[in-house]
Amino acid sequence: MSTYKAINLVRHLKGKPGPELFEVVEKTVPEPGDGEFLVKQAFMSMDPAMMGWMTGDTDSYIPPVELGTVMRSSGVGEVVASRHADFAVGDQVTGMFGWQEMALTDGKGINKVDKKIPPEMALAVFALPGLTATQGLFGCGHPKSGETLVVSGAAGSVGSIVGQLAKAEGLRVIGVVGSQEKADWIINELGFDGAVNYKTDDLNAKLDELVPNGIDVYFENTGGPIQHCVFDRMNAHGRIVVCGMIADYTAETPRPGPSWMRIIKKRLTIQGFTMPDHMHKAQELQAKLAPYVQNGDIKYRTHVLDGLESAMDGLNLFLSGGNKGKLMVKI
Amino acid sequence: MSTYKAINLVRHLKGKPGPELFEVVEKTVPEPGDGEFLVKQAFMSMDPAMMGWMTGDTDSYIPPVELGTVMRSSGVGEVVASRHADFAVGDQVTGMFGWQEMALTDGKGINKVDKKIPPEMALAVFALPGLTATQGLFGCGHPKSGETLVVSGAAGSVGSIVGQLAKAEGLRVIGVVGSQEKADWIINELGFDGAVNYKTDDLNAKLDELVPNGIDVYFENTGGPIQHCVFDRMNAHGRIVVCGMIADYTAETPRPGPSWMRIIKKRLTIQGFTMPDHMHKAQELQAKLAPYVQNGDIKYRTHVLDGLESAMDGLNLFLSGGNKGKLMVKI
Repeated sequence: MSTYKAINLVRHLKGKPGPELFEVVEKTVPEPGDGEFLVKQAFMSMDPAMMGWMTGDTDSYIPPVELGTVMRSSGVGEVVASRHADFAVGDQVTGMFGWQEMALTDGKGINKVDKKIPPEMALAVFALPGLTATQGLFGCGHPKSGETLVVSGAAGSVGSIVGQLAKAEGLRVIGVVGSQEKADWIINELGFDGAVNYKTDDLNAKLDELVPNGIDVYFENTGGPIQHCVFDRMNAHGRIVVCGMIADYTAETPRPGPSWMRIIKKRLTIQGFTMPDHMHKAQELQAKLAPYVQNGDIKYRTHVLDGLESAMDGLNLFLSGGNKGKLMVKI
Repeated sequence: MSTYKAINLVRHLKGKPGPELFEVVEKTVPEPGDGEFLVKQAFMSMDPAMMGWMTGDTDSYIPPVELGTVMRSSGVGEVVASRHADFAVGDQVTGMFGWQEMALTDGKGINKVDKKIPPEMALAVFALPGLTATQGLFGCGHPKSGETLVVSGAAGSVGSIVGQLAKAEGLRVIGVVGSQEKADWIINELGFDGAVNYKTDDLNAKLDELVPNGIDVYFENTGGPIQHCVFDRMNAHGRIVVCGMIADYTAETPRPGPSWMRIIKKRLTIQGFTMPDHMHKAQELQAKLAPYVQNGDIKYRTHVLDGLESAMDGLNLFLSGGNKGKLMVKI
């Protein structure tokens, strides 16, 4: 094949994402230069954070995607041509390959993944979601056996791993989800101790029932009204990990947060974090995560969209909560 | 003297503090038992936190003052009778002696202070304010030379020391105050780099002028609208130390805080802290603070009320901002 398809962002996101924000282009497959290699992407990861990258906001943790350039995303693929000493044809690799069938790279930020690991698992566990969960939970959440953790977006790619790691560490784990099906999944399949359905439950009544002794760690993936209900139940010396605010990414005016009064009263620590600050620790984090996977502690499910172009509408699944499992696009 | 005066809290604080919340009682001077000693209090410290202790809120960092018991406060005094091995008659001591002329104690939480240190300085620098400033700034704020720090309540007992310590560490320091007189004092006498008058300045315009490159450390003593203006200017990896929220202590409904979105975008850390968690480190903190005092880095001024009863109205000075310097009561 001498050409490949790529998708550029051509308009900033306002409101809902859709095909009108993108253009599909045909490009010539490049020859790797010295120290470069070419990756044929098998699966692209779809992540809520991508919506933040599409707004044109220059005041965030990484620069926005520039209009007219390939939409940013992580993915997994195979090296198909190489003039790089460390990467050989046939290697399975993960990295920020973007919305395109082929990617030329110098290897910076690219990680090799054992070929025995299926590409879906490489994306769902050992790439962004698993690294984010591991860094956020252990690096900021400092979980201790016997404590109670609440995680929002609990059936999501990050939240589901956070909850399972915390269960393995001996915590009581409550997940916040948006459907009965997801509630059943995290309780029956993942072993969570309880679930709050933020769409149908009386949030305060349900939390009173599920966490009568308060909350020690809150792993925040969504924002929204649940944030205040959880915050009001944080125990002394509680830790809050702010990893995502999907409910507010496309809001004109972000909702206010809780009063800081409780931060003093309970001596809380609230910490924001994003993976780009920690990607240099990717291998260390993968090593931390691996034993949990080997012990069978980490289950995952995937929601696979078919074909590069399906990405353009796919992000809406995060806003509707319609994705069932780690969202990815098969190319 | 065979009797002494004490003031009990008899009603919980709602709205403004005043004499109707208290009763003055006459008590018999006790004889120290084995392992006890008697302190004649010279000065009582008046601190904004006291209002929090008076609300009857059982959900805070220390239990509320029980109705019918002596109002809680720290103070400095002299040992006048002792059957304790470590404390001798004539020792100058600081501790939580409460609103009373005499206090019997077993020495727990009591610190000796060199008699060469005037009692006003012992209270204004080496007791609660200085320890709070030192623990909060270094333990949570992690100041680095060249960074910018904003402190609210900057002319207050804690804020003035926070700012001076940060200046000594090589930071650019901006203080938030409530009068021109206080602004002049922190700039001309304490060496702050600038001041925001939250009562008269256009907060956003003034901050744009004073911190064009954003804020790395925010030391929060007050709450109020300035909180949001400062928050919106926090730099990446900024630290926020939440030490006091005086503007909200007596509010029916605490004001909402800022959206957590920026916590992610800027990977902020927000940490609440109160000194009772750290009082076991009092001597270590005093040792950390002493060289700054010896170098002349720490100036202070006192606002002295006369006589035990003056405490009952004195707390209002915090709400009006009318105190000029560390507020204390001379007994």
